[in-house]
Amino acid sequence: MRMGHTVNFKEELAARTARAEEVLARFLPPQEGPAKELADAMSYSLLAGGKRLRPVLMAETFAVFGGEGAVIEPFMAGMEMIHTHSLIHDDLPALDNDDLRRGRPTTHRVYGEAAAILAGDALLNYAYETMCRAFGMGHDTDAVARTLSLIAEKTGIRGMLGGQSVDVALEGKPIPADTLSYIYEKKTAALIEASMTAGAVLAGADEADTAVLLEAARKIGVAFQIRDDILDVEGDQAALGKPVHSDEKNNKTTYVTLYGLAEADRCVQKLSGEALALLSGLKADTSFLQELTRAMTTRRF
Amino acid sequence: MRMGHTVNFKEELAARTARAEEVLARFLPPQEGPAKELADAMSYSLLAGGKRLRPVLMAETFAVFGGEGAVIEPFMAGMEMIHTHSLIHDDLPALDNDDLRRGRPTTHRVYGEAAAILAGDALLNYAYETMCRAFGMGHDTDAVARTLSLIAEKTGIRGMLGGQSVDVALEGKPIPADTLSYIYEKKTAALIEASMTAGAVLAGADEADTAVLLEAARKIGVAFQIRDDILDVEGDQAALGKPVHSDEKNNKTTYVTLYGLAEADRCVQKLSGEALALLSGLKADTSFLQELTRAMTTRRF
Repeated sequence: MRMGHTVNFKEELAARTARAEEVLARFLPPQEGPAKELADAMSYSLLAGGKRLRPVLMAETFAVFGGEGAVIEPFMAGMEMIHTHSLIHDDLPALDNDDLRRGRPTTHRVYGEAAAILAGDALLNYAYETMCRAFGMGHDTDAVARTLSLIAEKTGIRGMLGGQSVDVALEGKPIPADTLSYIYEKKTAALIEASMTAGAVLAGADEADTAVLLEAARKIGVAFQIRDDILDVEGDQAALGKPVHSDEKNNKTTYVTLYGLAEADRCVQKLSGEALALLSGLKADTSFLQELTRAMTTRRF
Repeated sequence: MRMGHTVNFKEELAARTARAEEVLARFLPPQEGPAKELADAMSYSLLAGGKRLRPVLMAETFAVFGGEGAVIEPFMAGMEMIHTHSLIHDDLPALDNDDLRRGRPTTHRVYGEAAAILAGDALLNYAYETMCRAFGMGHDTDAVARTLSLIAEKTGIRGMLGGQSVDVALEGKPIPADTLSYIYEKKTAALIEASMTAGAVLAGADEADTAVLLEAARKIGVAFQIRDDILDVEGDQAALGKPVHSDEKNNKTTYVTLYGLAEADRCVQKLSGEALALLSGLKADTSFLQELTRAMTTRRF
């Protein structure tokens, strides 16, 4: 059964998003010294808004599994830096060549291509610098190390960057269905998986619960990406903050071009329903996670 | 007093370089699955040879300060991945636009620009994945965490990438002497600092000794970069594996263009002498490090 979002959920989401913004603002790169322009380019995209879903998901699973204290915060900031790194590099002329992101000119349009490449590199690296600060916070060191390792794996060749590389290699070519699934699971779902499991692992969740979260996160991530395909056809440019119909223009294979709008929508609902079932099967209180799952898979922006 | 290198040193260096190659070969990214082409692009540049100075320096300071076992190996591989990441991105059309590196076509010439951007990203990330493996090896966890943190700092905006960003921002413009020093200390010396101090920190060296190593490494790194400037004027393209006279062609400010060849050479000798004095002042046996310092600052390739 699908429920509408309660006013309560919207307020809660706004509060958690505000916390993610506040945490991120405390972990910005140093804005002084000769490399100030690099810091500016890094912060420009990092502070361009966005839904902050990954740090919100991470903080929530940390809390749900009994995590306490500030040790989650460097990971929240680090995860958003990793995500922003990928956006800056995705937008480069050699990749998607996009001029607009979150309603503003992209980093390379403002700072130039070389600076955008270095800003992306520096954000990825600064994510690790930031996450390493969790070691000095009195939390269980093994849990911090395991959290760091899983985020690194989901970001790299076996995760986001692996999916991104296959997506780029097949640009403008027809993509078989199983390859498209691989791309969505890696390029988009991997960081959702990292966010949801990182919070739980850091809080000390057991392996069984972490495995359930991982599976739910994969489904949420793929559904979220298919919803993105749908919005590229049906969405509103002003609300999205980026051009619509770009997939069609770029001759890009998506769930919508492969299966049609109606079937793509059914996929989203099926995956969303399965994720909700997994989440509600956990002993922990996942009510906010469930609401957020519904919001992510029915979003209009 | 300067000594020629003994046959013994050359053999020792060859043995240590061979070990670094062997370690690196054991930590290559996974070469199977849909992202195989990304793995190929990552490995292409990683296995293109090179002097492997950073892992050799790291392994040496680890041994000199009593470090034992394999825990240094993921750090050796990770450091070479970070270095190679920076070379791949430096060579991109938007940056130095170089076609040749270590005697072979650069990554973007072989795999295309988009794949080279992602291969650089993936190598940087895989360095952290690889270094995180040190946590599972039974070594003191705090020492592993401190080693990881210092490498991250020296790689990022306060280190190599900071220097690189200033270098790029000033391309083709006159560079004041103090800014040029900053660029050399960050762009080149920071990873030498990271390599030499990481081995010591991982082995449990005390803060005083680590500070001496850091200072020596900074001098070695800057001297190494000035030697690079000199070789760009005096060197042999075949031995270097890259074109000479590129600084002049690119209208680049270097120690040689700023101070002339003779003064640049005096700088190298002064820095090298100061580094040797620092190293010989340590209680530990730094004889190999001293020989390597001489080799790095008098090299012809």
